[in-house]
Amino acid sequence: MSTDETPTDAEAACFEAGIKFGTLYHQFAGTPISPDSASSLATAMEEAIENQPHCIDVTVDVRIDELEAALAASTADYTELTGRFLEVEIVVDYEGCEVRTRMEMEDGYPLMRIESVHGR
Amino acid sequence: MSTDETPTDAEAACFEAGIKFGTLYHQFAGTPISPDSASSLATAMEEAIENQPHCIDVTVDVRIDELEAALAASTADYTELTGRFLEVEIVVDYEGCEVRTRMEMEDGYPLMRIESVHGR
Amino acid sequence: MSTDETPTDAEAACFEAGIKFGTLYHQFAGTPISPDSASSLATAMEEAIENQPHCIDVTVDVRIDELEAALAASTADYTELTGRFLEVEIVVDYEGCEVRTRMEMEDGYPLMRIESVHGR
Amino acid sequence: MSTDETPTDAEAACFEAGIKFGTLYHQFAGTPISPDSASSLATAMEEAIENQPHCIDVTVDVRIDELEAALAASTADYTELTGRFLEVEIVVDYEGCEVRTRMEMEDGYPLMRIESVHGR
Repeated sequence: MSTDETPTDAEAACFEAGIKFGTLYHQFAGTPISPDSASSLATAMEEAIENQPHCIDVTVDVRIDELEAALAASTADYTELTGRFLEVEIVVDYEGCEVRTRMEMEDGYPLMRIESVHGR
Repeated sequence: MSTDETPTDAEAACFEAGIKFGTLYHQFAGTPISPDSASSLATAMEEAIENQPHCIDVTVDVRIDELEAALAASTADYTELTGRFLEVEIVVDYEGCEVRTRMEMEDGYPLMRIESVHGR
Repeated sequence: MSTDETPTDAEAACFEAGIKFGTLYHQFAGTPISPDSASSLATAMEEAIENQPHCIDVTVDVRIDELEAALAASTADYTELTGRFLEVEIVVDYEGCEVRTRMEMEDGYPLMRIESVHGR
Repeated sequence: MSTDETPTDAEAACFEAGIKFGTLYHQFAGTPISPDSASSLATAMEEAIENQPHCIDVTVDVRIDELEAALAASTADYTELTGRFLEVEIVVDYEGCEVRTRMEMEDGYPLMRIESVHGR
Protein backbone atom coordinates (compact mmCIF):
# COMPACT_ATOMS: atom_id res chain seq x y z
CA MET A 1 0.00 0.00 0.00
CA SER A 2 1.44 3.36 -0.98
CA THR A 3 1.89 5.87 1.79
CA ASP A 4 -0.84 8.18 0.66
CA GLU A 5 -3.49 5.46 1.01
CA THR A 6 -2.57 4.85 4.64
CA PRO A 7 -5.07 6.39 7.08
CA THR A 8 -3.89 9.31 9.16
CA ASP A 9 -4.38 9.30 12.91
CA ALA A 10 -7.24 11.76 12.46
CA GLU A 11 -8.94 9.43 9.97
CA ALA A 12 -8.46 6.47 12.30
CA ALA A 13 -9.93 8.55 15.15
CA CYS A 14 -12.98 9.35 13.02
CA PHE A 15 -13.37 5.67 12.08
CA GLU A 16 -13.26 4.74 15.78
CA ALA A 17 -15.86 7.39 16.61
CA GLY A 18 -18.14 6.02 13.90
CA ILE A 19 -17.84 2.50 15.32
CA LYS A 20 -18.96 3.78 18.71
CA PHE A 21 -22.00 5.51 17.20
CA GLY A 22 -23.06 2.49 15.17
CA THR A 23 -22.61 0.30 18.24
CA LEU A 24 -24.58 2.56 20.55
CA TYR A 25 -27.46 2.99 18.17
CA HIS A 26 -27.91 -0.58 16.97
CA GLN A 27 -27.18 -2.27 20.27
CA PHE A 28 -29.86 -0.33 22.10
CA ALA A 29 -32.45 0.65 19.46
CA GLY A 30 -35.62 -1.31 20.18
CA THR A 31 -35.13 -1.42 23.96
CA PRO A 32 -38.41 -1.00 25.86
CA ILE A 33 -38.31 2.49 27.40
CA SER A 34 -40.54 4.68 29.56
CA PRO A 35 -39.92 7.97 31.37
CA ASP A 36 -39.18 5.94 34.54
CA SER A 37 -36.59 3.67 32.95
CA ALA A 38 -34.93 6.26 30.70
CA SER A 39 -32.28 7.29 33.20
CA SER A 40 -30.94 3.80 33.89
CA LEU A 41 -30.81 3.03 30.18
CA ALA A 42 -28.92 6.25 29.41
CA THR A 43 -26.34 5.45 32.11
CA ALA A 44 -25.90 1.89 30.88
CA MET A 45 -25.44 3.11 27.30
CA GLU A 46 -22.75 5.58 28.38
CA GLU A 47 -20.83 3.07 30.49
CA ALA A 48 -21.11 0.28 27.90
CA ILE A 49 -19.72 2.36 25.04
CA GLU A 50 -17.00 3.91 27.20
CA ASN A 51 -15.57 0.37 27.46
CA GLN A 52 -14.63 0.47 23.80
CA PRO A 53 -11.06 1.32 22.77
CA HIS A 54 -10.07 5.00 22.44
CA CYS A 55 -13.45 6.16 23.80
CA ILE A 56 -12.95 9.05 26.23
CA ASP A 57 -16.50 10.14 26.98
CA VAL A 58 -20.08 9.31 26.05
CA THR A 59 -23.07 11.47 27.00
CA VAL A 60 -26.58 10.16 26.35
CA ASP A 61 -29.57 12.42 26.89
CA VAL A 62 -33.01 10.89 26.56
CA ARG A 63 -35.46 13.50 25.32
CA ILE A 64 -38.11 12.92 27.95
CA ASP A 65 -40.50 15.49 26.46
CA GLU A 66 -40.42 13.69 23.11
CA LEU A 67 -40.90 10.35 24.89
CA GLU A 68 -43.89 11.66 26.82
CA ALA A 69 -45.39 13.09 23.65
CA ALA A 70 -45.08 9.70 21.94
CA LEU A 71 -46.74 7.94 24.88
CA ALA A 72 -49.54 10.50 25.08
CA ALA A 73 -50.45 9.54 21.50
CA SER A 74 -50.48 5.83 22.34
CA THR A 75 -52.43 3.39 24.48
CA ALA A 76 -49.19 1.89 25.84
CA ASP A 77 -47.14 3.22 28.75
CA TYR A 78 -43.80 2.39 27.16
CA THR A 79 -42.32 2.41 23.68
CA GLU A 80 -39.15 1.31 21.88
CA LEU A 81 -35.97 3.32 21.94
CA THR A 82 -35.22 5.00 18.63
CA GLY A 83 -33.17 7.98 17.49
CA ARG A 84 -36.09 10.33 17.95
CA PHE A 85 -35.65 10.07 21.72
CA LEU A 86 -31.87 10.52 21.85
CA GLU A 87 -29.16 13.14 21.84
CA VAL A 88 -25.67 11.67 22.08
CA GLU A 89 -22.15 13.05 22.23
CA ILE A 90 -19.09 10.82 21.87
CA VAL A 91 -15.45 11.88 22.28
CA VAL A 92 -12.67 9.67 20.94
CA ASP A 93 -8.92 10.09 21.30
CA TYR A 94 -6.66 8.16 18.95
CA GLU A 95 -2.92 8.76 19.26
CA GLY A 96 -3.45 12.30 20.51
CA CYS A 97 -6.04 13.17 17.90
CA GLU A 98 -9.36 14.08 19.53
CA VAL A 99 -12.62 13.82 17.66
CA ARG A 100 -15.93 15.14 18.97
CA THR A 101 -19.08 13.66 17.43
CA ARG A 102 -22.80 14.11 17.94
CA MET A 103 -26.13 12.59 17.04
CA GLU A 104 -29.36 14.53 16.97
CA MET A 105 -32.52 14.58 14.91
CA GLU A 106 -32.44 16.49 11.65
CA ASP A 107 -35.36 16.34 9.22
CA GLY A 108 -36.73 13.32 11.08
CA TYR A 109 -33.52 11.34 10.72
CA PRO A 110 -31.03 10.69 13.55
CA LEU A 111 -28.02 12.39 11.98
CA MET A 112 -24.56 11.44 13.26
CA ARG A 113 -21.79 13.92 12.50
CA ILE A 114 -18.28 15.00 13.42
CA GLU A 115 -18.23 18.30 15.29
CA SER A 116 -14.48 18.82 15.51
CA VAL A 117 -11.11 17.19 14.95
CA HIS A 118 -8.20 18.35 17.11
CA GLY A 119 -4.52 17.46 17.21
CA ARG A 120 -3.86 16.57 13.61
CA MET B 1 -61.33 -22.37 16.73
CA SER B 2 -62.65 -25.06 19.07
CA THR B 3 -62.53 -24.33 22.77
CA ASP B 4 -59.82 -26.81 23.54
CA GLU B 5 -57.35 -25.08 21.22
CA THR B 6 -57.76 -21.78 23.04
CA PRO B 7 -54.85 -20.95 25.32
CA THR B 8 -55.47 -21.00 29.06
CA ASP B 9 -54.41 -18.07 31.22
CA ALA B 10 -51.47 -20.14 32.45
CA GLU B 11 -50.36 -20.82 28.88
CA ALA B 12 -50.69 -17.15 28.01
CA ALA B 13 -48.66 -16.28 31.10
CA CYS B 14 -45.90 -18.67 30.01
CA PHE B 15 -45.94 -17.20 26.49
CA GLU B 16 -45.55 -13.70 27.97
CA ALA B 17 -42.66 -14.86 30.17
CA GLY B 18 -40.94 -16.33 27.14
CA ILE B 19 -41.28 -13.06 25.25
CA LYS B 20 -39.56 -11.23 28.11
CA PHE B 21 -36.66 -13.70 28.11
CA GLY B 22 -36.15 -13.55 24.36
CA THR B 23 -36.29 -9.77 24.52
CA LEU B 24 -33.84 -9.46 27.38
CA TYR B 25 -31.32 -11.82 25.87
CA HIS B 26 -31.34 -10.64 22.28
CA GLN B 27 -31.68 -6.94 23.01
CA PHE B 28 -28.62 -6.88 25.23
CA ALA B 29 -26.39 -9.75 24.02
CA GLY B 30 -23.30 -8.24 22.43
CA THR B 31 -23.22 -5.15 24.67
CA PRO B 32 -19.66 -4.14 25.63
CA ILE B 33 -19.28 -5.04 29.33
CA SER B 34 -16.59 -4.84 32.01
CA PRO B 35 -16.69 -5.36 35.77
CA ASP B 36 -17.09 -1.58 36.18
CA SER B 37 -20.05 -1.26 33.82
CA ALA B 38 -21.82 -4.49 34.77
CA SER B 39 -23.98 -2.95 37.47
CA SER B 40 -25.46 -0.18 35.33
CA LEU B 41 -26.21 -2.62 32.54
CA ALA B 42 -27.95 -5.06 34.91
CA THR B 43 -30.13 -2.25 36.28
CA ALA B 44 -31.03 -1.01 32.79
CA MET B 45 -31.94 -4.54 31.70
CA GLU B 46 -34.23 -4.99 34.69
CA GLU B 47 -36.00 -1.66 34.26
CA ALA B 48 -36.32 -2.03 30.47
CA ILE B 49 -37.96 -5.44 30.62
CA GLU B 50 -40.20 -4.47 33.54
CA ASN B 51 -41.82 -2.01 31.13
CA GLN B 52 -43.30 -4.89 29.15
CA PRO B 53 -46.92 -5.94 29.76
CA HIS B 54 -47.67 -8.38 32.60
CA CYS B 55 -44.07 -8.26 33.82
CA ILE B 56 -43.96 -8.06 37.62
CA ASP B 57 -40.27 -8.40 38.40
CA VAL B 58 -36.94 -8.90 36.66
CA THR B 59 -33.70 -9.69 38.48
CA VAL B 60 -30.43 -9.67 36.52
CA ASP B 61 -27.23 -10.84 38.17
CA VAL B 62 -24.01 -10.43 36.24
CA ARG B 63 -21.57 -13.18 37.22
CA ILE B 64 -18.60 -10.95 37.92
CA ASP B 65 -16.29 -13.87 38.69
CA GLU B 66 -17.01 -15.40 35.28
CA LEU B 67 -16.52 -12.01 33.64
CA GLU B 68 -13.19 -11.50 35.38
CA ALA B 69 -12.08 -14.99 34.39
CA ALA B 70 -12.89 -14.25 30.74
CA LEU B 71 -10.96 -10.99 30.85
CA ALA B 72 -7.95 -12.61 32.57
CA ALA B 73 -7.69 -14.92 29.55
CA SER B 74 -7.81 -11.97 27.12
CA THR B 75 -5.73 -8.95 26.17
CA ALA B 76 -8.83 -6.72 26.28
CA ASP B 77 -10.31 -5.08 29.38
CA TYR B 78 -13.90 -5.59 28.29
CA THR B 79 -15.89 -8.22 26.46
CA GLU B 80 -19.36 -8.75 24.98
CA LEU B 81 -22.36 -9.69 27.08
CA THR B 82 -23.46 -13.27 26.56
CA GLY B 83 -25.43 -15.84 28.54
CA ARG B 84 -22.30 -17.12 30.23
CA PHE B 85 -22.21 -13.94 32.33
CA LEU B 86 -25.87 -13.84 33.33
CA GLU B 87 -28.36 -15.24 35.81
CA VAL B 88 -31.85 -13.89 35.31
CA GLU B 89 -35.22 -14.34 37.03
CA ILE B 90 -38.43 -13.03 35.51
CA VAL B 91 -41.89 -13.09 37.13
CA VAL B 92 -44.99 -12.58 35.03
CA ASP B 93 -48.60 -12.27 36.13
CA TYR B 94 -51.31 -12.78 33.54
CA GLU B 95 -54.91 -12.61 34.76
CA GLY B 96 -53.93 -13.84 38.21
CA CYS B 97 -51.72 -16.62 36.97
CA GLU B 98 -48.14 -16.13 38.15
CA VAL B 99 -45.22 -17.70 36.34
CA ARG B 100 -41.65 -17.71 37.67
CA THR B 101 -38.92 -18.27 35.12
CA ARG B 102 -35.13 -18.42 35.22
CA MET B 103 -32.09 -18.45 32.98
CA GLU B 104 -28.78 -19.93 33.98
CA MET B 105 -25.96 -21.81 32.31
CA GLU B 106 -26.38 -25.55 31.91
CA ASP B 107 -23.86 -27.59 29.90
CA GLY B 108 -22.47 -24.39 28.43
CA TYR B 109 -25.84 -23.23 27.11
CA PRO B 110 -27.94 -20.42 28.66
CA LEU B 111 -31.02 -22.46 29.53
CA MET B 112 -34.30 -20.63 30.06
CA ARG B 113 -36.95 -22.54 32.00
CA ILE B 114 -40.20 -22.19 33.92
CA GLU B 115 -39.71 -22.71 37.65
CA SER B 116 -43.34 -22.59 38.74
CA VAL B 117 -46.86 -21.77 37.63
CA HIS B 118 -49.32 -20.54 40.26
CA GLY B 119 -52.99 -19.64 40.17
CA ARG B 120 -54.27 -21.94 37.47
CA MET C 1 -41.92 -27.99 44.31
CA SER C 2 -45.42 -29.45 44.52
CA THR C 3 -46.75 -31.15 41.41
CA ASP C 4 -49.32 -28.53 40.62
CA GLU C 5 -46.68 -25.80 40.23
CA THR C 6 -44.81 -27.82 37.63
CA PRO C 7 -45.34 -26.53 34.08
CA THR C 8 -47.30 -28.74 31.71
CA ASP C 9 -45.93 -29.56 28.27
CA ALA C 10 -48.40 -27.09 26.79
CA GLU C 11 -47.15 -24.35 29.12
CA ALA C 12 -43.55 -25.17 28.27
CA ALA C 13 -44.44 -25.05 24.57
CA CYS C 14 -45.98 -21.59 25.03
CA PHE C 15 -42.90 -20.41 26.94
CA GLU C 16 -40.68 -21.63 24.09
CA ALA C 17 -42.85 -19.86 21.52
CA GLY C 18 -42.60 -16.63 23.49
CA ILE C 19 -38.80 -16.91 23.57
CA LYS C 20 -38.74 -17.18 19.78
CA PHE C 21 -40.92 -14.07 19.40
CA GLY C 22 -38.86 -11.97 21.79
CA THR C 23 -35.70 -13.14 20.04
CA LEU C 24 -36.97 -12.40 16.55
CA TYR C 25 -38.26 -8.98 17.42
CA HIS C 26 -35.39 -7.66 19.50
CA GLN C 27 -32.59 -9.22 17.48
CA PHE C 28 -33.75 -7.61 14.27
CA ALA C 29 -35.63 -4.43 15.27
CA GLY C 30 -33.57 -1.46 14.16
CA THR C 31 -32.09 -3.18 11.09
CA PRO C 32 -31.80 -0.83 8.09
CA ILE C 33 -34.49 -1.93 5.63
CA SER C 34 -35.75 -0.89 2.18
CA PRO C 35 -38.15 -2.54 -0.27
CA ASP C 36 -35.11 -4.04 -2.07
CA SER C 37 -33.56 -5.59 1.04
CA ALA C 38 -36.79 -6.72 2.72
CA SER C 39 -36.81 -10.17 1.18
CA SER C 40 -33.30 -11.18 2.25
CA LEU C 41 -33.95 -9.94 5.77
CA ALA C 42 -37.21 -11.88 6.05
CA THR C 43 -35.47 -15.08 4.92
CA ALA C 44 -32.60 -14.58 7.35
CA MET C 45 -35.03 -13.97 10.22
CA GLU C 46 -36.92 -17.16 9.43
CA GLU C 47 -33.82 -19.32 9.15
CA ALA C 48 -32.16 -17.81 12.23
CA ILE C 49 -35.13 -18.42 14.52
CA GLU C 50 -35.77 -21.90 13.12
CA ASN C 51 -32.38 -22.83 14.60
CA GLN C 52 -33.80 -22.45 18.10
CA PRO C 53 -34.94 -25.56 20.00
CA HIS C 54 -38.48 -26.87 19.41
CA CYS C 55 -39.08 -24.36 16.61
CA ILE C 56 -40.87 -26.04 13.68
CA ASP C 57 -41.65 -23.14 11.38
CA VAL C 58 -41.24 -19.38 11.15
CA THR C 59 -42.91 -17.21 8.51
CA VAL C 60 -41.95 -13.55 8.24
CA ASP C 61 -43.86 -11.26 5.91
CA VAL C 62 -42.57 -7.74 5.48
CA ARG C 63 -45.47 -5.40 4.76
CA ILE C 64 -43.99 -3.74 1.69
CA ASP C 65 -46.93 -1.37 1.26
CA GLU C 66 -46.47 -0.06 4.79
CA LEU C 67 -42.72 0.23 4.21
CA GLU C 68 -43.24 2.18 0.98
CA ALA C 69 -45.74 4.47 2.71
CA ALA C 70 -43.22 5.23 5.44
CA LEU C 71 -40.51 6.01 2.88
CA ALA C 72 -42.84 8.19 0.82
CA ALA C 73 -43.27 10.38 3.92
CA SER C 74 -39.50 10.63 4.43
CA THR C 75 -36.45 12.08 2.67
CA ALA C 76 -34.55 8.80 3.19
CA ASP C 77 -34.72 5.73 0.96
CA TYR C 78 -34.51 3.25 3.85
CA THR C 79 -35.79 3.06 7.40
CA GLU C 80 -35.40 0.88 10.51
CA LEU C 81 -37.23 -2.38 10.94
CA THR C 82 -40.00 -2.19 13.51
CA GLY C 83 -43.19 -4.12 14.25
CA ARG C 84 -45.22 -1.87 11.97
CA PHE C 85 -43.59 -3.54 8.97
CA LEU C 86 -43.95 -7.15 10.09
CA GLU C 87 -46.38 -10.04 10.20
CA VAL C 88 -44.90 -13.15 11.76
CA GLU C 89 -46.11 -16.68 12.45
CA ILE C 90 -44.14 -19.10 14.63
CA VAL C 91 -44.98 -22.77 15.25
CA VAL C 92 -43.38 -24.61 18.17
CA ASP C 93 -43.61 -28.27 19.09
CA TYR C 94 -42.67 -29.31 22.59
CA GLU C 95 -43.08 -32.97 23.48
CA GLY C 96 -45.94 -33.40 21.01
CA CYS C 97 -47.72 -30.23 22.05
CA GLU C 98 -47.98 -27.81 19.11
CA VAL C 99 -48.43 -24.11 19.62
CA ARG C 100 -49.20 -21.64 16.81
CA THR C 101 -48.41 -18.00 17.51
CA ARG C 102 -48.67 -14.79 15.56
CA MET C 103 -47.59 -11.15 15.64
CA GLU C 104 -49.45 -8.40 13.86
CA MET C 105 -50.24 -4.75 14.49
CA GLU C 106 -53.23 -3.98 16.69
CA ASP C 107 -53.99 -0.41 17.76
CA GLY C 108 -50.51 0.64 16.68
CA TYR C 109 -48.78 -1.94 18.85
CA PRO C 110 -47.14 -5.14 17.55
CA LEU C 111 -49.28 -7.66 19.41
CA MET C 112 -47.92 -11.18 19.89
CA ARG C 113 -50.50 -13.85 20.70
CA ILE C 114 -51.13 -17.58 20.83
CA GLU C 115 -53.50 -18.71 18.09
CA SER C 116 -53.90 -22.34 19.11
CA VAL C 117 -52.56 -25.07 21.38
CA HIS C 118 -52.82 -28.67 20.17
CA GLY C 119 -51.94 -32.00 21.73
CA ARG C 120 -52.47 -31.29 25.41
CA MET D 1 -15.41 26.59 14.81
CA SER D 2 -12.08 27.41 13.19
CA THR D 3 -11.42 25.89 9.80
CA ASP D 4 -8.78 23.49 10.99
CA GLU D 5 -11.20 21.71 13.32
CA THR D 6 -13.60 21.01 10.48
CA PRO D 7 -13.51 17.39 9.29
CA THR D 8 -12.09 16.71 5.84
CA ASP D 9 -14.04 14.60 3.36
CA ALA D 10 -11.64 11.73 4.07
CA GLU D 11 -12.31 12.00 7.81
CA ALA D 12 -16.05 12.10 7.20
CA ALA D 13 -15.71 9.03 4.96
CA CYS D 14 -13.87 7.17 7.73
CA PHE D 15 -16.54 8.20 10.26
CA GLU D 16 -19.24 6.86 7.94
CA ALA D 17 -17.35 3.58 7.49
CA GLY D 18 -17.07 3.20 11.26
CA ILE D 19 -20.82 3.72 11.66
CA LYS D 20 -21.47 0.89 9.19
CA PHE D 21 -19.16 -1.47 11.08
CA GLY D 22 -20.65 -0.71 14.48
CA THR D 23 -24.12 -1.14 13.00
CA LEU D 24 -23.34 -4.43 11.31
CA TYR D 25 -21.69 -5.94 14.35
CA HIS D 26 -24.10 -4.88 17.05
CA GLN D 27 -27.28 -5.31 15.04
CA PHE D 28 -26.51 -8.93 14.22
CA ALA D 29 -24.26 -10.20 17.05
CA GLY D 30 -26.24 -12.74 19.06
CA THR D 31 -28.30 -14.00 16.11
CA PRO D 32 -28.86 -17.78 16.22
CA ILE D 33 -26.66 -19.25 13.48
CA SER D 34 -25.86 -22.71 12.08
CA PRO D 35 -24.00 -23.83 8.95
CA ASP D 36 -27.37 -24.11 7.18
CA SER D 37 -28.55 -20.59 8.02
CA ALA D 38 -25.21 -18.82 7.63
CA SER D 39 -25.66 -17.93 3.98
CA SER D 40 -29.03 -16.21 4.36
CA LEU D 41 -27.78 -14.23 7.33
CA ALA D 42 -24.66 -13.08 5.45
CA THR D 43 -26.80 -11.90 2.52
CA ALA D 44 -29.21 -10.05 4.80
CA MET D 45 -26.34 -8.35 6.62
CA GLU D 46 -24.84 -7.17 3.32
CA GLU D 47 -28.10 -5.84 1.93
CA ALA D 48 -29.15 -4.21 5.21
CA ILE D 49 -25.92 -2.25 5.63
CA GLU D 50 -25.77 -1.29 1.95
CA ASN D 51 -28.96 0.69 2.62
CA GLN D 52 -27.00 3.13 4.77
CA PRO D 53 -25.82 6.43 3.27
CA HIS D 54 -22.52 6.50 1.34
CA CYS D 55 -22.16 2.72 1.57
CA ILE D 56 -20.95 1.30 -1.76
CA ASP D 57 -20.33 -2.34 -0.96
CA VAL D 58 -20.49 -4.78 1.96
CA THR D 59 -19.07 -8.31 1.83
CA VAL D 60 -19.79 -10.68 4.72
CA ASP D 61 -18.08 -14.06 4.86
CA VAL D 62 -19.15 -16.45 7.58
CA ARG D 63 -16.22 -18.67 8.56
CA ILE D 64 -18.02 -21.99 8.27
CA ASP D 65 -15.00 -23.99 9.46
CA GLU D 66 -14.83 -21.95 12.65
CA LEU D 67 -18.59 -22.32 13.10
CA GLU D 68 -18.42 -26.08 12.65
CA ALA D 69 -15.52 -26.29 15.10
CA ALA D 70 -17.55 -24.40 17.71
CA LEU D 71 -20.54 -26.70 17.22
CA ALA D 72 -18.39 -29.84 17.37
CA ALA D 73 -17.35 -28.76 20.87
CA SER D 74 -20.97 -28.22 21.95
CA THR D 75 -24.13 -30.26 22.51
CA ALA D 76 -26.16 -27.72 20.50
CA ASP D 77 -26.57 -27.61 16.73
CA TYR D 78 -26.51 -23.83 16.53
CA THR D 79 -24.74 -21.00 18.28
CA GLU D 80 -24.81 -17.18 18.47
CA LEU D 81 -23.18 -14.99 15.86
CA THR D 82 -20.05 -13.29 17.13
CA GLY D 83 -16.95 -11.78 15.55
CA ARG D 84 -15.11 -15.08 15.66
CA PHE D 85 -17.31 -16.32 12.82
CA LEU D 86 -17.06 -13.26 10.58
CA GLU D 87 -14.85 -11.59 8.00
CA VAL D 88 -16.31 -8.35 6.68
CA GLU D 89 -15.27 -5.75 4.12
CA ILE D 90 -17.07 -2.42 3.79
CA VAL D 91 -16.43 0.24 1.14
CA VAL D 92 -17.69 3.78 1.66
CA ASP D 93 -17.60 6.72 -0.73
CA TYR D 94 -18.09 10.21 0.68
CA GLU D 95 -17.81 13.10 -1.74
CA GLY D 96 -15.41 11.20 -3.98
CA CYS D 97 -13.25 9.94 -1.14
CA GLU D 98 -13.27 6.13 -1.02
CA VAL D 99 -12.46 4.26 2.16
CA ARG D 100 -11.94 0.48 2.31
CA THR D 101 -12.33 -1.11 5.73
CA ARG D 102 -12.13 -4.65 7.07
CA MET D 103 -12.91 -6.70 10.15
CA GLU D 104 -11.14 -9.93 11.01
CA MET D 105 -10.00 -11.70 14.13
CA GLU D 106 -6.68 -10.66 15.60
CA ASP D 107 -5.50 -12.02 18.95
CA GLY D 108 -9.01 -13.27 19.65
CA TYR D 109 -10.59 -9.86 19.15
CA PRO D 110 -12.64 -8.83 16.09
CA LEU D 111 -10.44 -5.98 14.90
CA MET D 112 -11.98 -3.36 12.61
CA ARG D 113 -9.51 -1.29 10.62
CA ILE D 114 -9.14 1.04 7.62
CA GLU D 115 -7.28 -0.61 4.76
CA SER D 116 -7.03 2.37 2.42
CA VAL D 117 -8.21 5.92 1.82
CA HIS D 118 -8.40 7.14 -1.78
CA GLY D 119 -9.26 10.47 -3.36
CA ARG D 120 -8.17 12.90 -0.69
